[in-house]
Amino acid sequence: MALKLYDLDVSGNCYKVRLFCALLNVPLDLISVDFMSGEHKRSPLIDLNAFGQLPILEDGGLVLRDSQAMLVYIARKLGNESWLPTDAVSQALVTQWLMVAENEIARGPNDARLHDKFGYKLDITAAREKAKRILTIMDRHLETRSWLALERPTIADIACMPYIALGWEGGVPLDPYPAVKAWVERIKNLPGFVSMPGL
Amino acid sequence: MALKLYDLDVSGNCYKVRLFCALLNVPLDLISVDFMSGEHKRSPLIDLNAFGQLPILEDGGLVLRDSQAMLVYIARKLGNESWLPTDAVSQALVTQWLMVAENEIARGPNDARLHDKFGYKLDITAAREKAKRILTIMDRHLETRSWLALERPTIADIACMPYIALGWEGGVPLDPYPAVKAWVERIKNLPGFVSMPGL
Repeated sequence: MALKLYDLDVSGNCYKVRLFCALLNVPLDLISVDFMSGEHKRSPLIDLNAFGQLPILEDGGLVLRDSQAMLVYIARKLGNESWLPTDAVSQALVTQWLMVAENEIARGPNDARLHDKFGYKLDITAAREKAKRILTIMDRHLETRSWLALERPTIADIACMPYIALGWEGGVPLDPYPAVKAWVERIKNLPGFVSMPGL
Repeated sequence: MALKLYDLDVSGNCYKVRLFCALLNVPLDLISVDFMSGEHKRSPLIDLNAFGQLPILEDGGLVLRDSQAMLVYIARKLGNESWLPTDAVSQALVTQWLMVAENEIARGPNDARLHDKFGYKLDITAAREKAKRILTIMDRHLETRSWLALERPTIADIACMPYIALGWEGGVPLDPYPAVKAWVERIKNLPGFVSMPGL
């Protein structure tokens, strides 16, 4: 039975899961959710995810929320050690960047895009400031590295890339960050890569 | 050689690491950082953590930032399968709550405390609203469970508890959330438990 993803095409969090499954050549049943009408805030979806957010992943009786946790699940179940190693050092280094996806990138370029593209009421100046701060750190980090956490692509790269690459939709273009731009291109060149609207 | 933690006594993120090491009976070298003078924003600490935050964990040549990633590291290196299992389902369930610590709890009760106790300029109404939302979800979740992720305590509980229990310092008391209160008490009763200021 294939994994089932409650999905929204323009969501970078949903896209992370679609992308990772494509890279692993793992089939994924997509169920489009009517986000605009708030389908994810009502039964039956709110009973699957009390947080009222997308994506939601179902695998048999298991229900997961949070795209970073989904990447961990899929890597551990269907990927191999290369995408999420089990040794302490590697797993911690990958986790650090999963947390950046959940925190600094969500509050920076993701929030800026939510404001500009979807009309969310939030402090756009603060979001763009946070975006610049994390992009500056990532650009310096990637000046001497090809991938965020290890010497090869991991779920850290999959988790962080989408909202970085979509930042231009929130007034945060990547031109000032050449090392970040090159890293996005490296991900786009991975075998099996799929895109999403705006990327 | 013991793990070395660049530490601040009133930081819930630093405390998570101190608490987990105490529960595992793992020695930890604490280095107090002069947070008020911004020591963590200057060399040499900023060279260890470009994000300019505490805690920072050193283990030989390894340097880690982000308290959730530190819990993963210590669990994998010095704990055992019980605190962070390696199977796909358990690891995903634990990760979901690590992400709640990084996101909803940080933006809710943690931000409210930063405002009230430390004078951070932020939207206190929004922070308290977010705190209520996550506490309501957690309270319902814990009505039928003793621990957040699995049938036993994991690093998910260690990651989420501190800022929930410190919420009263940001005007977010736990009285309306009896299941959350009972869960905090269960953690306080774990063998080896240590406290922190305000807890």
